[in-house]
Amino acid sequence: MIRLHFAPNTIAMAAMVALEEGDVHYAALQLDFAKSDQQSTGYLAINPKGRVPSLETPQGTLTEVGAILEYIADTLVPALKPMDAWHAAKMREMMFYLGSTMHVNHAHKFRGHRWANTQSAMEDMTSKVPETMAASCAYVEDQIEGPLLFGSQPTIADCYLLPIATWLAGDGVDITDYPKLTTWFETISARPSVQAVKTKSGWI
Amino acid sequence: MIRLHFAPNTIAMAAMVALEEGDVHYAALQLDFAKSDQQSTGYLAINPKGRVPSLETPQGTLTEVGAILEYIADTLVPALKPMDAWHAAKMREMMFYLGSTMHVNHAHKFRGHRWANTQSAMEDMTSKVPETMAASCAYVEDQIEGPLLFGSQPTIADCYLLPIATWLAGDGVDITDYPKLTTWFETISARPSVQAVKTKSGWI
Repeated sequence: MIRLHFAPNTIAMAAMVALEEGDVHYAALQLDFAKSDQQSTGYLAINPKGRVPSLETPQGTLTEVGAILEYIADTLVPALKPMDAWHAAKMREMMFYLGSTMHVNHAHKFRGHRWANTQSAMEDMTSKVPETMAASCAYVEDQIEGPLLFGSQPTIADCYLLPIATWLAGDGVDITDYPKLTTWFETISARPSVQAVKTKSGWI
Repeated sequence: MIRLHFAPNTIAMAAMVALEEGDVHYAALQLDFAKSDQQSTGYLAINPKGRVPSLETPQGTLTEVGAILEYIADTLVPALKPMDAWHAAKMREMMFYLGSTMHVNHAHKFRGHRWANTQSAMEDMTSKVPETMAASCAYVEDQIEGPLLFGSQPTIADCYLLPIATWLAGDGVDITDYPKLTTWFETISARPSVQAVKTKSGWI
């Protein structure tokens, strides 16, 4: 059986939503970041990066949420991925943007120690997060076809965006400044998959 | 015809190597970052992000190097991508790591203004780059099957890693500290595709 290691409110929720979209039978294994579970010897043996998500599959363990989402679509929930190369590429353009830019912008709020050592630098980074996340929202807003990212059918890019969207209020961004993003958020949040994830994980 | 917008020594070189791997007929359009070509009105109309690479295709323009590489493999150079879901996922695990972690580590050397405002914060970020890039090399070293990332057949993940590897010396990392990475670099650099890219682009 597929085993997903996750922590509530993290990017790992994207993988759980994708699994629920396909009514996949899987084990959800919750880590408590407050107790640094992700740095425990047991978890580091599964994922030496000490991050979530990790997906244990019959063929081995996968890390990196983008790769995990592609694998879930390829093997378990094919409806989450366009069949033709162009639409798959546009979906991946969004996924790589989320991974390399928008999530990275957010990470500068509390994870500045990854890239700097001084307290003042970390405070500087934290203070800029509302600006960089607003810029990312403006980009995403411009990309949304509506009501979901690429029409009415959800993709793994929608799954990827959802946890990031739940971080916006805490990052000092008002989602209602972005009408298409607001409709997107209401639409995806109403899906049974997301409701199931909230019930199972205590996710906000 | 496919049109690739690139600048020498940037991550865009990954896309050019992928195209050369398949002997694809394409137009290579060079930007001069010293003249801020990427911020020109003409280029921003193609890619509003003001970054490279951009790929103009018969169906529209693509950005984000990871998405461009997948598209090239899907439509033009299928040998660069494993056919089965597990090996494709492992390839993407590396690609998302490169995009969200290793390239981001490197970007803190000269692009700190993306995430902070003060000069002292940017100097702090710059000073930490040798440490973060060394950590990324250690991770990649551990993943290499040899001689290339996933055996003897190059993938789009090898293409993605190549420009990043050329940045290491400037980032204060000695590639010879990583034996498998050193062999990887020698192996990929000797390929006719990479030699063709060097000849055409003036790439180091």
